[in-house]
Formats: sequence, C-alpha cells, structure tokens
Amino acid sequence: MSLLVVGSVAYDNIETPTERRDDVLGGSALHFSFAATFFSPVQLVAVVGGDWRKEDTQLLESRGVDTTGLEVQPNGKTFRWTGRYRENMDDRDTLETQLNVLGDFEPKLPETYRRSQFVFLANGSTKTQLKVLEQTQGADLVVADTMNLWINVERDLLLELLQKIDGLMLNDSEAKQLTGEINTLTAARKVLELGPKFVVIKKGEHGAIFISQYDIYLIPAFPTEQLVEPTGAGDTFAGGMMGYIAQQGKSDGETIRQAIAYGAIVASFQVEGFGAERLLQISKADIDERLEKFRRMIGF
Amino acid sequence: MSLLVVGSVAYDNIETPTERRDDVLGGSALHFSFAATFFSPVQLVAVVGGDWRKEDTQLLESRGVDTTGLEVQPNGKTFRWTGRYRENMDDRDTLETQLNVLGDFEPKLPETYRRSQFVFLANGSTKTQLKVLEQTQGADLVVADTMNLWINVERDLLLELLQKIDGLMLNDSEAKQLTGEINTLTAARKVLELGPKFVVIKKGEHGAIFISQYDIYLIPAFPTEQLVEPTGAGDTFAGGMMGYIAQQGKSDGETIRQAIAYGAIVASFQVEGFGAERLLQISKADIDERLEKFRRMIGF
Repeated sequence: MSLLVVGSVAYDNIETPTERRDDVLGGSALHFSFAATFFSPVQLVAVVGGDWRKEDTQLLESRGVDTTGLEVQPNGKTFRWTGRYRENMDDRDTLETQLNVLGDFEPKLPETYRRSQFVFLANGSTKTQLKVLEQTQGADLVVADTMNLWINVERDLLLELLQKIDGLMLNDSEAKQLTGEINTLTAARKVLELGPKFVVIKKGEHGAIFISQYDIYLIPAFPTEQLVEPTGAGDTFAGGMMGYIAQQGKSDGETIRQAIAYGAIVASFQVEGFGAERLLQISKADIDERLEKFRRMIGF
Repeated sequence: MSLLVVGSVAYDNIETPTERRDDVLGGSALHFSFAATFFSPVQLVAVVGGDWRKEDTQLLESRGVDTTGLEVQPNGKTFRWTGRYRENMDDRDTLETQLNVLGDFEPKLPETYRRSQFVFLANGSTKTQLKVLEQTQGADLVVADTMNLWINVERDLLLELLQKIDGLMLNDSEAKQLTGEINTLTAARKVLELGPKFVVIKKGEHGAIFISQYDIYLIPAFPTEQLVEPTGAGDTFAGGMMGYIAQQGKSDGETIRQAIAYGAIVASFQVEGFGAERLLQISKADIDERLEKFRRMIGF
C-alpha cells in the first residue's frame, strides 16, 4: 500500500575520528526512503536546490521512490549539514547547518499522494509536517519524528501536531525534554496523554521502546562491530518500520512488533557505512538473514 | 545445588536527589545473596566488623544464606560506602569509601563450602577473589564480577583470574577500559580471548548482553517507573542469574538465557527501593509474574 514521507533531502559533510567525506547524500526523508523501499514503494515530499544532482533523482527512482513530490528550486541550494562524530561515535557536534531551500519550503502534495494510507512525517520543521498532514485525506496511520530543536522552537505547533497523529518517534532525551520527566517510561506515558496512540522511544545503540496504552515492546539494537558512522540510523529505523507496515497494509500490535524489529535491523546496516552507502549495497535477503540472527539473540 | 559467593557486606550511606539514608545494609555479596536466595541457598564468604548488627546475620539466615563463612572481626569496623546519585539517577559520586575490615581480609572457606558447584566472585578485590578460588575444588561454573578500580590497580591479577573462570560480568565502560576497544561487541570478544568462556556486559537501564564464542543474547532491562535508587542492581542481576543456574544445576545455553532474564527481573525490583529493602518485600511469585510480563514485551 502507499507510503508517503516528508522530510529533508540533503548533502552532508560528515567527519568521524578516522575519515571525512563531503557531499554525502543524506537527510531524514532520504534515509527513510532507502530503508522503507526494501518493503514498499515510497512517495517522497522534499525540496532540493539547483546543485542537486540529476543522478541522485535517478538513484531514488531506481530504488522505488516516487519523486513527483521532490521539488527542485534551481536558484536555491540543497540543505546541508556538517557534523563531526567524537571518539565514542555516539556524541556528535554540528559544525554547520545551511537550511538553504529548506528554510521557506511550502510543501504541495501531488494529487496522487493525497490519499496515501501510511504517512511518515520525518524529522523536520513541525510547520512543514502540519502543512503536509493538512493535504492528506483518510490516512490509516500517521507517524511523526521530531527532535530537540522543534521541541524548543515550535513547541505549540508540536502540541497541535500531537493531537493529529497516531504515533510519535523521538529520542530518549527528547521525550524527557518534551515532558519534563526524568524516567523514560513516565515520559513516554506523558507523551501518550498529549495525543498519540503510541510512542517509540529511540535509544540509539541501546535499541528502542514502543509504548501504547496497552502494550510495551522492548527492542535491543542489533549489535554490529562494523560501526562506520551513525547518521540516519533513526530515520532508517523508522523507514524499516513504516515500510513493513505499508507492505502488510495493517498496523495492529503484532504487525508493529515485527515492523520495529525490521526497523532495528535496517538501522544496524545503516551505521555500517557513510551516509546511505551501506543500504545501497545490501538486499532484502541480507535483512531477512540478519533478522533471523536477531530473533535467536532475544527472547528466553 | 550449592552456590558460593564472596564479596563485600557493608553499611552504606546513600543520598538521592530526594532522600538520604544512613547505615543501609549493602555490599556486593549481600545484594547478590538476597537475589540468589529466591532460587537457591547461598554460602556467603565475607567479613564484617564489631559494629555488625546480630539481627542482620539473622536476617541473612532467615533468607537462606549460610553465614558460616561470614567472619566477624570484633575490633574492626564494617566496610562503608557513602555515595550520592545525581538528578538522572544514573551517574553517582562516591563521597567516601571506608574499607575498614575489608582492607586486609584473608578469606578462609569453611570445609562445607569447598566443593560448591557454583561459585560467584562478586565485586571486590581481585586478590580476594583469587584466594577464594584457590580454596574451591571442582566447581561446575565460576563467574566473577569486577569494576574499574580493580582493572586499574590489579590488572595483572585480573588477567590471571580471567584464565581461571568460566564467565566475567562487567559494565560496558569497564569492558572497554579492560580491552582498549570502543565497540562493546569487539570489547566483549577481546575479553573472551583473555580466558572466560562467556562475558556478560551490564548496561544498567539499557539491559545486558551475553556473549560466548557461539552465542549472543540481548536482554533489555525491565522498565520500571518506580526508580528509587540503583545501588546493587548489578549484584542482584548476578544473584538472580546465578541463583537460577544453581537451582537448575546446569549451565547450558538455554539455562543461561533464562537465568539472565531472571537476573534482569530481580534487578528491576532492586532499584525500586533503598538498599535491599525492595527484595525483602517481594516473593518468588512477584518475580515470576514480572518475568511473564517481560516475556510479552520482547521477541517478535
């Protein structure tokens, strides 16, 4: 079934303790798309500038991404994030953020996108997320991601958004920031009071927790020794999860549980390369093989 | 079957952001014992001073702890740790450590202890751990805990110990410190090269990872909203695990997997009270009930 994503598409400059690469294909919606298309086609809503490489559009399309909603502003420049990971590869410093064309992005959904059953509002301005949501009709499931920046500067809009979505994904520290609670589970329960039916707390290398009024699922991260750099891990986690849900065409508890496991697996591949490179090397069979390994690692 | 533990028995002074309590019953071997005795009797090897309260010996015995090996030095004082937890309840500052009688403890195993099938060398001086191990014969399974202090000051002895034990438990950061690796899994594999057949990496509120040459088990922490203070969480994790193994009388992969789950559950109760108070309030049925909840939270 149809899966729509709105978010950023970017060229990133990424530095790790051992390597630096510039002009790496990135952005929340891009990483989400490369993950989700292992399971389901994706309708992409995003904006890029005149520096956008045509072959990158072709790459997206070759992976099953509908780029009708990818607006190119020839006089602007593509969003660019420059960041440096520290020795532990967990903490990172943002060295520069050039919003460029993302700054005054007014998303307009192609007609063919408006009745998408599954909608993911990837990390990006809450204002943009709301504008996209207004243009959709009758979606079965709407899930949003957010981050500390938007919790700070668009708090009122975010509270409005929370009334309109089914699920929220955010980091542990962001859930605490949003609710003022210091306990993860208490923070998650407070998020539920703000509107969503479920919340997925992302904990990076420590996995994730899904919490609804009825259920709690705990999902560790799949351990990898091949950590290259973790940009986009959360976005690909979401992409694996939403892609599987769209493929199944349903979002009951058991489907979401399986979807979250797939999210964890796709994210474990994502961190094994720079930017999106690792997901472009693997197949659905690689994902399924690792999922089975993962299954044997958990449960008792 | 018989389960022996050596480690500290202490009176702690513990401060959290909301409360301070003095003379709280503590120590690695004590917390271990209260956890393990839900499953199996425990033979305790430890030392206390003249300030030790007789009723605390009675309490231990009432829980199924054999105190024949609890040496009382009437002219010394019991080991005392004073610590303060920060707002996040994760980081803590040690305000004072009075080694007292623990400083020159020369453990002598009662004859009835020497053929214990299961041996746990709880957190404490590596020298003491080695001295206990020398006095045991033909144990089926020997597991040791350690910490940053001993990795620093008794590194050579620790490397000697690692050649003689079956399993090592330690924190994520300690595994990295011991091996010089920054990746948890790589660090764990390096620990295996130093001798043990398996290593259990404790990650506090993020759970634990068991790694052997053949298997990896990932175990999240059971999420609790009732976090009072976490002293002894790792010791009770070990106690639940070793207690279950001793009860089953075997340590194959499936038994260890179940044992680790029990460890996580007992630890989740431990953090819900000051010192050992919470474990003294609950029954084995409470543990089993929570284990079943836990089972439903994980797997896919």
